[in-house]
Formats: sequence, C-alpha cells, structure tokens
Amino acid sequence: MVNMNEFALIDQYFKSIVGVHEDVHLGIGDDAACVSVPAGYDLVISCDTLVSDVHFLSSWDAFDIAWKAVMVNVSDMAAMGATPKWLLLALTLPDVDEPWIKRFSQGLQAALAKYGIALIGGDTTRGPLSMTLTIHGIVPKGKAVKRSNAKPGDRIYVSGPLGAPTLALEGLNDLALETSIQEELMEKLLRPIPRVDLIPFLQDYASAAIDISDGFSADLNHVCTASQVGALIDLKAVPIHHALPHYCPNPAEFALNSGDEYELCFTVSPLNEDQMLRQIAVLGIQCYAVGFIEKKLGLRARDTDGQIVPLNPKGYRHF
Amino acid sequence: MVNMNEFALIDQYFKSIVGVHEDVHLGIGDDAACVSVPAGYDLVISCDTLVSDVHFLSSWDAFDIAWKAVMVNVSDMAAMGATPKWLLLALTLPDVDEPWIKRFSQGLQAALAKYGIALIGGDTTRGPLSMTLTIHGIVPKGKAVKRSNAKPGDRIYVSGPLGAPTLALEGLNDLALETSIQEELMEKLLRPIPRVDLIPFLQDYASAAIDISDGFSADLNHVCTASQVGALIDLKAVPIHHALPHYCPNPAEFALNSGDEYELCFTVSPLNEDQMLRQIAVLGIQCYAVGFIEKKLGLRARDTDGQIVPLNPKGYRHF
Repeated sequence: MVNMNEFALIDQYFKSIVGVHEDVHLGIGDDAACVSVPAGYDLVISCDTLVSDVHFLSSWDAFDIAWKAVMVNVSDMAAMGATPKWLLLALTLPDVDEPWIKRFSQGLQAALAKYGIALIGGDTTRGPLSMTLTIHGIVPKGKAVKRSNAKPGDRIYVSGPLGAPTLALEGLNDLALETSIQEELMEKLLRPIPRVDLIPFLQDYASAAIDISDGFSADLNHVCTASQVGALIDLKAVPIHHALPHYCPNPAEFALNSGDEYELCFTVSPLNEDQMLRQIAVLGIQCYAVGFIEKKLGLRARDTDGQIVPLNPKGYRHF
Repeated sequence: MVNMNEFALIDQYFKSIVGVHEDVHLGIGDDAACVSVPAGYDLVISCDTLVSDVHFLSSWDAFDIAWKAVMVNVSDMAAMGATPKWLLLALTLPDVDEPWIKRFSQGLQAALAKYGIALIGGDTTRGPLSMTLTIHGIVPKGKAVKRSNAKPGDRIYVSGPLGAPTLALEGLNDLALETSIQEELMEKLLRPIPRVDLIPFLQDYASAAIDISDGFSADLNHVCTASQVGALIDLKAVPIHHALPHYCPNPAEFALNSGDEYELCFTVSPLNEDQMLRQIAVLGIQCYAVGFIEKKLGLRARDTDGQIVPLNPKGYRHF
C-alpha cells in the first residue's frame, strides 16, 4: 500500500503543475473536479491505458512516458476535431521512486503546457506500473468528426509520412540503423506530436477521421467498417518516412501497417477539397491524398505496377 | 497482447449494455465519445482505479467487482452533489476469460441501470487485473459541494451507520461471525449503495461534503484541512452498525476508522439545519448529527465519559 506520506509526495509533484485555468472551478484535491463546458460546445471524452512493457518500456525516461501518454490522448481529441482541455491521470506505481515521479511530472507538465491542458484530477494506487489518462475536449455543437460518415467518392488523406515509430522499434530490436537515423526515429516514437493543427480544418471539411494508432490499413478499415464503405489506396501516393527505403524491402507496405503514428487519416468530399487544401497551405501544412472511398466494401490497393490488389488491414504492433 | 478477436468479444459484451441516452451523441466505438452538458450546469469529473487484491479480491464474483467499481465512482458524484451521467471504463485483464467478462458486464449493466448512467467509452488492455473508471456528473452551476467550505459552527452529519465493511473484512480474515451477520456485512462490503438520494439536499444545504472511503476520521480530517477548521465529535452520537457491539471492544472507534463505507459526511450551517431535516424526513431519510465544526484546528472527540480527547484520523484499510 502506498501510504499517506508517499501520497503526499506524489500530490505535491502533481499539484505543482496544475496552473490556472479559468474554466476549472475545482481541480485536484476534492472528491471530483468541476469545470464549465462553454455554451455552444459539445464535450468530447476519451481514455487510454498504457501498460508497462506493452505500450512503453519501463526502461524509458519517465519524462518520455508521461509525454507519450498525454500525446496519445491528445491525438484522440484531434481525430474528433476537438480542442483538448482537461485531463485526469490514474497512475499505478509499484513503489514510490521520487526521481522517477519528478521526471514523470516534468514530462507531464511539458506535454500539458504545450496545449494549455489542465490536470484536474486522478488517482494514485500501488500495483504494476500502468496509467489511464482520461482527456476531455470541446467541439462546436454538432461538429465532432466521427468515423462513421465517410461517403463513396470522398478523398482519403494522411497527415504525414508513416513508418518511423515502427522502424524505431525494429532498430531497438534487431535492425542495425545509423546512429543519426536511430535518434531521429526514436524521437518520433518517444515524442509524438499529435495533429492539433488540423483540428479547425477537420471540423469544417472532414467527413470522417481517425488517428493512426493501430496502423493506417487497420485504422482506415475501422473508418470503412463504421461507414459501411470500402476504399481504394494508391500505394505510390502513401507518404513514407525518408529512412524506410534504406531499411525496408517493401516501404509502402511497412508504412501502411505501422502503428503508434498519431498522424491522422481523414476523408474529404471532393466538393470541399480545394478550399481545404488552400487553407492548410497558407499555414504551411501539407496533407497527402492517398486514395478514395468506394461503395464496394473492403480495402484495395493499386500497387506500384498499377495492379489493383486486396489490402489486408494489419497493424497493432507493440513490444 | 489481447488480439482483435478477443477485443471483439469484449466489445460485444460492453456494447450490448450501452442503452439509449439522448444526451450521448457518440458512444463506444469512435476515437472518443461526444455528449452534451445541459445549459446551466457544470460538469463534475472523477476517476478511481481499483487494483486486484488491493481494492477487491480476485476471487470475488465479477458481478460484485463491477458493481463496486461503479458505486465507488457514483459515491464521488454524490459527495459533490452531482448527478451521475456518463462513465468510461478502462479495463486491464490478464487474459480473456469469457465467463468472467460476461459476469462482469452483467454487474456493470445492473449498476449503470440503477442510476441511468451511460457507458460511453473506455479501453481494454492486457496486463494485471485492474480497472480505472472515469465518471461524469452534472450539477447546477455553482452548486458543486466542495470539501473546503466548512465553517465554524456548522453541524457535522453522517448519512448512515458505520463499520459494516470493515467488520466484514475482519470476518473474512480471522473473526468468527454468525453466518447471517457475515452475509449482511458482506452485502455492505460488496454491494455498497451510494447516497445518491441526498444529492438535492447537499446542493441546497451542505457547506462541505465528502464520501467516507478512507474512514470517517480520515475523511473528516480532509474536510477540516481543506476548510482550515477543526471539529469536535460526540462519540456517543456516531451511528454504528448494529453488529459492532457484539464483536468490537470499542465500537465507536472501530466505526470512526472504518473505510470503504460510501456513506457521506457533510456539514450544514445551523441556519439551514431544521429545513433540511424536515425535507429529508419527508422522504424517510435519516441523517445523524455527530458534532460541530470549530475554529480550533484538529479533530477532537467527546468520549463516552464526557471527556474531550484528541481524535487521531486513521483509516484507509484495504486487504
């Protein structure tokens, strides 16, 4: 059992990073937090559990574990077109290791500060290292972007090059990567940057969206299943990380099945496409058109020879 | 790793208990849930982690584990004067045991149905058995009942007799209890009924409130610390479970330090007391006045001899 003094230590670290947020009436330290959702907005809620040696390695710097835990949750908000606001952290620890907690709280603080998210509550228990984060965001009423609204003819977009996190894992395991490449890839694995910059454009233009956590093919399949449609992907158009061709025999396939990406996959009606592309270009954002939603169910790919072949949704790779 | 088919099995059980809730725009199955907080209300949020063999025994019926997990969270809402509305369940399982999941989902459904709470999302991961529930409630703007607002002169109330859950644990361990008493006590331990019936009265009359999870003395101490006040408790007035005198040498002390109660401790200004008591009496609810908030810091008790002695906050008893 974590005793009261140990709890006080943990509380001290977490309370120190709370900050001031005018929409938070009551934060850490009561039976519950109390916040205001502004008029005209819906509330969007998601939670993710990260288990040691499943979703992260216990050997990682605790700063990175905290960062990643927050960003995985922020990415779910981005995929809904919702602005992240409030977070609860339920942390289960095998023991109270003060340097670890300090480092973890620094990562948490940095990640929350990046998006102005308030830590409003949580729970601390003793047990095998794991954490569940519950994140809350707001979206103008009726503007939440679902998975289930992709329509035949919609263009499929990916928000950035894929494959780096999985190549980083291969490097950790058995692939000999150049040091500079390894470092670049580890940065992608450990410090993902969710696509919060796309939130307003998703609200206005996306018919459906999902974040790429299981792998592009698996996540696109979730969209297609929920929307009762299929998809045709042009393999040549799939953006891949620049290191992939040097290490992978089949870079496009590798990228399509790479999880833990936290880029977004979204669909846009052809009627809205040009306007969206002009608006994101103004901000220097590039997204990649990789195919179309089809009425015919299932995933298909046009391979590099121009042949249309079935695309099997794979992915969900962890340690 | 829990594979996709196993997840599908779990999803099937949890989706089957979702129900229809008009304020839920999007529930399980997207990157996040989307709900509407009604105009004029604040949002109240709390999360609790329950770890196997710390907060419950893995040998318990999974129905009871689910029930208790929900009720512990509902109790936090009641303590805030908030009406519980939406729940997320992050469940970590060592393996996919279908009969266990079925039974767990039945307990979950029964507990949620009791208060019309919607299951709107969650996460399922493989790992040591534990669960984090995040509950959301609503309260009229500005009416959330904090811990930090107890004033000198306020009367301290307890919502019901204390001691049964801890006596049940003693019975599980080494105390020989009569079978009928053991059954009655286990019901209190396994199937707590949070004091949702008091929510409207707390909103209107309570200056501070907390649910008794660590133990009355420890939880009252939380209120006093947060409010920067002290308290004087009349030991003779503390309501105790009828079985305590038969098994405990010092029933009042046993009751004061018994955790896992999920009764409420709250404070009421003397100006409001009579009106509150009249209103709850109409509904057949009895609450117990056990002492007063004082300006002098610390907890004190008037013992059965009329002597005033220091009261040490204890509690937080688990397995």
